[in-house]
Amino acid sequence: MPYLLNTWYVAALSSEVTANAPLARTLLDEPVVLYRTAGGQAVALADRCPHRFAPLSRGRLVDGALECPYHGLRFGADGRCVFNPHGNTNGNGNGNGTASPPARAQARHYPVRERYGAVWFWPGDPERAAHTPLPAFDYLEPHENFTTERYLHTRANYQLSADNLLDLSHFQYLHPETLGSEQMASGVVRATVAGDSVSVRREMKGEYLRPMLTQSFNLLYGERADRELDVHWMPPGLLTIVVRISESGLPETAREAKSAHWLTPETAVSSHYFFAFGLPRAMGEHGAELVSRTAQSLLAPFRDEDIPMLEAQQRMMGERDFWSLRPVMLPIDAGAVHARRIMERLITHEAQGGTERVSTAEHAS
Amino acid sequence: MPYLLNTWYVAALSSEVTANAPLARTLLDEPVVLYRTAGGQAVALADRCPHRFAPLSRGRLVDGALECPYHGLRFGADGRCVFNPHGNTNGNGNGNGTASPPARAQARHYPVRERYGAVWFWPGDPERAAHTPLPAFDYLEPHENFTTERYLHTRANYQLSADNLLDLSHFQYLHPETLGSEQMASGVVRATVAGDSVSVRREMKGEYLRPMLTQSFNLLYGERADRELDVHWMPPGLLTIVVRISESGLPETAREAKSAHWLTPETAVSSHYFFAFGLPRAMGEHGAELVSRTAQSLLAPFRDEDIPMLEAQQRMMGERDFWSLRPVMLPIDAGAVHARRIMERLITHEAQGGTERVSTAEHAS
Amino acid sequence: MPYLLNTWYVAALSSEVTANAPLARTLLDEPVVLYRTAGGQAVALADRCPHRFAPLSRGRLVDGALECPYHGLRFGADGRCVFNPHGNTNGNGNGNGTASPPARAQARHYPVRERYGAVWFWPGDPERAAHTPLPAFDYLEPHENFTTERYLHTRANYQLSADNLLDLSHFQYLHPETLGSEQMASGVVRATVAGDSVSVRREMKGEYLRPMLTQSFNLLYGERADRELDVHWMPPGLLTIVVRISESGLPETAREAKSAHWLTPETAVSSHYFFAFGLPRAMGEHGAELVSRTAQSLLAPFRDEDIPMLEAQQRMMGERDFWSLRPVMLPIDAGAVHARRIMERLITHEAQGGTERVSTAEHAS
Repeated sequence: MPYLLNTWYVAALSSEVTANAPLARTLLDEPVVLYRTAGGQAVALADRCPHRFAPLSRGRLVDGALECPYHGLRFGADGRCVFNPHGNTNGNGNGNGTASPPARAQARHYPVRERYGAVWFWPGDPERAAHTPLPAFDYLEPHENFTTERYLHTRANYQLSADNLLDLSHFQYLHPETLGSEQMASGVVRATVAGDSVSVRREMKGEYLRPMLTQSFNLLYGERADRELDVHWMPPGLLTIVVRISESGLPETAREAKSAHWLTPETAVSSHYFFAFGLPRAMGEHGAELVSRTAQSLLAPFRDEDIPMLEAQQRMMGERDFWSLRPVMLPIDAGAVHARRIMERLITHEAQGGTERVSTAEHAS
Repeated sequence: MPYLLNTWYVAALSSEVTANAPLARTLLDEPVVLYRTAGGQAVALADRCPHRFAPLSRGRLVDGALECPYHGLRFGADGRCVFNPHGNTNGNGNGNGTASPPARAQARHYPVRERYGAVWFWPGDPERAAHTPLPAFDYLEPHENFTTERYLHTRANYQLSADNLLDLSHFQYLHPETLGSEQMASGVVRATVAGDSVSVRREMKGEYLRPMLTQSFNLLYGERADRELDVHWMPPGLLTIVVRISESGLPETAREAKSAHWLTPETAVSSHYFFAFGLPRAMGEHGAELVSRTAQSLLAPFRDEDIPMLEAQQRMMGERDFWSLRPVMLPIDAGAVHARRIMERLITHEAQGGTERVSTAEHAS
Repeated sequence: MPYLLNTWYVAALSSEVTANAPLARTLLDEPVVLYRTAGGQAVALADRCPHRFAPLSRGRLVDGALECPYHGLRFGADGRCVFNPHGNTNGNGNGNGTASPPARAQARHYPVRERYGAVWFWPGDPERAAHTPLPAFDYLEPHENFTTERYLHTRANYQLSADNLLDLSHFQYLHPETLGSEQMASGVVRATVAGDSVSVRREMKGEYLRPMLTQSFNLLYGERADRELDVHWMPPGLLTIVVRISESGLPETAREAKSAHWLTPETAVSSHYFFAFGLPRAMGEHGAELVSRTAQSLLAPFRDEDIPMLEAQQRMMGERDFWSLRPVMLPIDAGAVHARRIMERLITHEAQGGTERVSTAEHAS
């Protein structure tokens, strides 16, 4: 399956990557090993020893180098073999019991950055990574915000997850007890495109919200509320959702919550879903508590309602192309369709040798 | 795999199809959802929402319409979308909070009939379904007979099951403790073809039958019996087996039992096996009891002896064509080979545009 | 996957093949059934009845013939049908209740030999089998040696196992607590080719060996030892490993242990691994005990350390060709690469119609 290569993807949450136990993760169909150097720097290498294809993720970290568990070659953070223990073979040894690392013994090394509680990796041309900043998720900057992150594996293509997040009209059907409301379907929805980004705004008036939301937003259960949902998508599958809820007719009572949703393909039919919440440290203790509680309470609907549906969709689609199944279009799909068309254009453009930067900066908030 | 399309298949037992919980079943490689309307009418639709391919079988039945579990579109018994809850989108709503159902939003609808304790469906041209009667299984008409039905799933092509039923010479090898006898192999077997139907008659004289049969047929265990087995097959895999057993040499003591065996492809390598028994209500209490006991006692050999063998055959064949493996032919195979040749002819004929009706009426009893 | 056909492979340990229960085993992608005649002769037939492809391995042995579990055809040790119970059909019976076995009803029969505690089979031209002796493993002749054998299944191509055995430099990485030593990597390694055989010699001086080895070789734990490892490989994957260990600097104290390692492909991505040990009966009681203890103590590292690594390699390779992944070559790989090249040459030669014998005799000890 063709993926967009010259772009940043989340490879793992920062908390998943350690200096003790290498993490094996398949990213864009490739086996990748993630670990930290003694200095704490996150590293992503191809998880396949170039000698005999043993998974390096089963090896030990020795003096900050990753040792192959089969024959003991060691690889540095740039993927080069830094140690070959096998000397004296046919007189080729260097006399001290070890041999020179063979020049070709190199595990592919991926550019990596770490920010917003996540380790990001770049599967394309490393040169271009150096000149491409990470997208901005200001509300997750830890010095100004309380933040929390979670990870869920999904046996469905990452664009089915993007469809799901870009069309929140499913709330009342998949999540009637938590995020939905009976008034939701009659909300006004508007999708806009700016550069390579897509935004979908949904406004509901006079909703009766479920306890999970009224508690989080400090509303009286049973009173009507007004809700705005702003979904911002940028390639390859990085979203911010802003929820604004106020007492009905009293916009000055609005409270706002922002969350990030990062989608990374594992294979053509499976993906990694990372999500994160942030609230200003200015909110004090209550903000810290709220961020943590929100992440915890949303885990259940995401895991038990969204993901089973995405996986059922994927099984119904099999390995067939989405468009080949001739999906019926509803107006609520506008945002998701824009996002799919942008990805198709960018992937085709890249395959033809195009090198311009994805123009997403304006939506990164 | 090519299947015969313009013909009736059993989709489910009547008891499996309810107005509460939709039933998901793969039929001829297609996902199908089966349910009943409020009025009790059985419905078969493609189990894939035309909007985003969610399985409709996970949805609720609301006012007799099937609601998609993802975005809440509702579909009527003819597969047309009858309700789209998403209004006001970009001004396209109809003002009352819902929108017009999109014209293309239609789940494929299959012609359905219900009879003989089963829901039948027609995967081909609906026009032709209207003019094609169901095959007759008179001994299963409930007003004149006590009947009972069972279902078993089989991980083998449906024609391996037909082979099995058309050649009962396997009784002594697969079912020595129930249906077989040592005298069985020396029985006289004769296969005849009439139109598109096949009949195989097997006659045994002086058999020592096992207790399961002597009890059912009210014979003294240990006494010799004469047995006639008549297997009638018609496309696409609908069989009636008539068993006649008498005290040896006393044909006037014969009792007769009829059973139906309906085979429906699930995939190229798996199938649905439905079987049913009927005895005249004229027999009174004893008939009712006998029908129920027979179904129960045959479940074990079918499930524990026939199906494991069919599945082992299928594993040995893999996805290869039956004839490509050059099976050795024995005279006992004549009926099964006739049936396979008829199916091949009908499928080829249909693929070339032929439209005559399958001529099976004469064997349907 | 192309395999070398005109050669002997181990199909099973002798102890696995009995006159009571047929053994089903996939060999070179083909289902094979192994059993013994009443006289004790090992037989290998295609495990697929030529009539309807039922697995013969589920059948009974009746009067030394293997009976198909589905319709009761019986097959002799040469694969010919010797009994067809189905007579009288359409008048084709022979009058006594059975019919002539159909001429084409023949299960493929493989040439078989039994020696060294193993049943060997020949998947190629039977004519050539008759003129090709088994390779020699003199140290496993039971009248002169105490012997013991083991079997392990491996979900990896058989040549990955050969690579493993031809490059024992992995001892310190996979087996640090049993077979490895810190001095191992600095040993001198030399690979030589003679005809179609490969030998790899590895010499270590002044090793500190682990208790498992010091006990087996009757050395003082903590004292330095000298170790020689001689690995002899011949097609299609038959190896002898000779281990010689002495007190360091005292070659006259050397003790020697020989083991056989026989690799047979199951499929392109799985294999059968048989290994055997032998020690001269001249050693008396102690030899018997040592052979048995060695087999038992090596089972754990083979099963828990080698095989998981081979299986991880295979998963990383998928179904891709080894060379297409462009493995980096180290000097320690010389022997394994020679063996792979010999196999490629022999398989290509055979496919082109070549008929010379594999020239391995000189290494078979």
